[in-house]
Amino acid sequence: MKPLILITNDDGIQSKGISELIDMACTLGNVVVMAPDGPRSAQSNALTMAVPVYYQLERKEPGLEIYKCSGTPTDCVKLALNNVLDRKPDLIFSGINHGSNSGINVIYSGTMGAVFEGCVNEIPSVGFSICDHAKDADFSKAKVYFEQIARKVMMEGLPAGVCLNVNAPMGDIKGVRLSQQTKGYWTEEFENRTSPHGQDYYWLTGYFLNQEPDNELTDEWALANGYVSIVPTRVDMTDYEAIKLLKGYEEIR
Amino acid sequence: MKPLILITNDDGIQSKGISELIDMACTLGNVVVMAPDGPRSAQSNALTMAVPVYYQLERKEPGLEIYKCSGTPTDCVKLALNNVLDRKPDLIFSGINHGSNSGINVIYSGTMGAVFEGCVNEIPSVGFSICDHAKDADFSKAKVYFEQIARKVMMEGLPAGVCLNVNAPMGDIKGVRLSQQTKGYWTEEFENRTSPHGQDYYWLTGYFLNQEPDNELTDEWALANGYVSIVPTRVDMTDYEAIKLLKGYEEIR
Repeated sequence: MKPLILITNDDGIQSKGISELIDMACTLGNVVVMAPDGPRSAQSNALTMAVPVYYQLERKEPGLEIYKCSGTPTDCVKLALNNVLDRKPDLIFSGINHGSNSGINVIYSGTMGAVFEGCVNEIPSVGFSICDHAKDADFSKAKVYFEQIARKVMMEGLPAGVCLNVNAPMGDIKGVRLSQQTKGYWTEEFENRTSPHGQDYYWLTGYFLNQEPDNELTDEWALANGYVSIVPTRVDMTDYEAIKLLKGYEEIR
Repeated sequence: MKPLILITNDDGIQSKGISELIDMACTLGNVVVMAPDGPRSAQSNALTMAVPVYYQLERKEPGLEIYKCSGTPTDCVKLALNNVLDRKPDLIFSGINHGSNSGINVIYSGTMGAVFEGCVNEIPSVGFSICDHAKDADFSKAKVYFEQIARKVMMEGLPAGVCLNVNAPMGDIKGVRLSQQTKGYWTEEFENRTSPHGQDYYWLTGYFLNQEPDNELTDEWALANGYVSIVPTRVDMTDYEAIKLLKGYEEIR
């Protein structure tokens, strides 16, 4: 039996990146796509709760079904797992995202939100992103690596509770680095404008402040130096060391 | 100088839980509130990017300023840090959430999204939640513990990169347990209905499947047994052990 691969993204069903990912996945197995019907960038693991969600079949051909959905990337995975697929998929791929999900972006990313949802459900799950926001970005160099990574995950699985955050640099690629999430944060984040009616409003903007630019172990370093970065990412956010450090809180009465 | 405390939540500025948290924080320092202008549950670390955000002053009195904002909980923290506060706050408190953020809920929670944003910015940050969704929930028993936890964080700080996910059970409280995030996931998640016009739509619902109900180290166990759970939670999602396990990926060319 061919592997069953679920695909989603956060840029929406119309993006070039998801088309490239679908092409890639179709060489590996049977593919079901459940993707947002428009852009859902920076939706993290957000769920749609205040309103219901909708989905509809866009296209069906041998080995490929494509659905679009009114919800977030995480909604897409939940809907596919619970309402569309007749069995648990063997793999979940999310992307290919137009823009990096390295460093702290992992916690805001809708692409990675979908991946975490897969991981929570014990399905080997990978997010693919390239460091290029352009709508017509060139995925050809990245895909050479992404396809091999996808195939290796398919053959070998992933450790329990671990998913992959895979990012590719712009330009030529030197190889692959297993990396850690770079420490840093976004700063100067809002641009203040005033409407014609006198109301102030604020656009999210700013730049990423890398707190460890020289650390060769980080994903930002890998990308800046021409490597594909793979960060093994876990959905258990517990800091086990801190449990020991903070035991004094148990004395509170 | 009194400590400066930033407060937000995901239930919105009108909720009882945030009023209780404001009352509590005002006994500890000067308080600035930047909270969503309505419910933003399950918004995770979502950011508002497709449209701008707005905020406005609701109330100002000595030691307390209250703003409401059109964005997500994470937007609220970013806006307060970048546009409203004249210095970095000493503490960020989020909540008190009406409903548990234990177990895997931590990745969906808007309450905890705000806490992660504080942690990324190196500010000691705590999310407070109680296991009661009722609008008029009784916070009195939980607050006895929450206030002591808040005071301890204020006096001692937190380890770098660590924030706290604090949940209180319903009813009488036996004490405090330092806990780990329970393994589990939500299942049977959508209720299918049909509109008067014949269109299917889906409401998110379902129940939490606890994969380790007997594990006394978990937050779900603590809550089920009458304890306040504190999970030290980290925003570095890297699985460092898996970096070693997956080194073979670096051979991809």
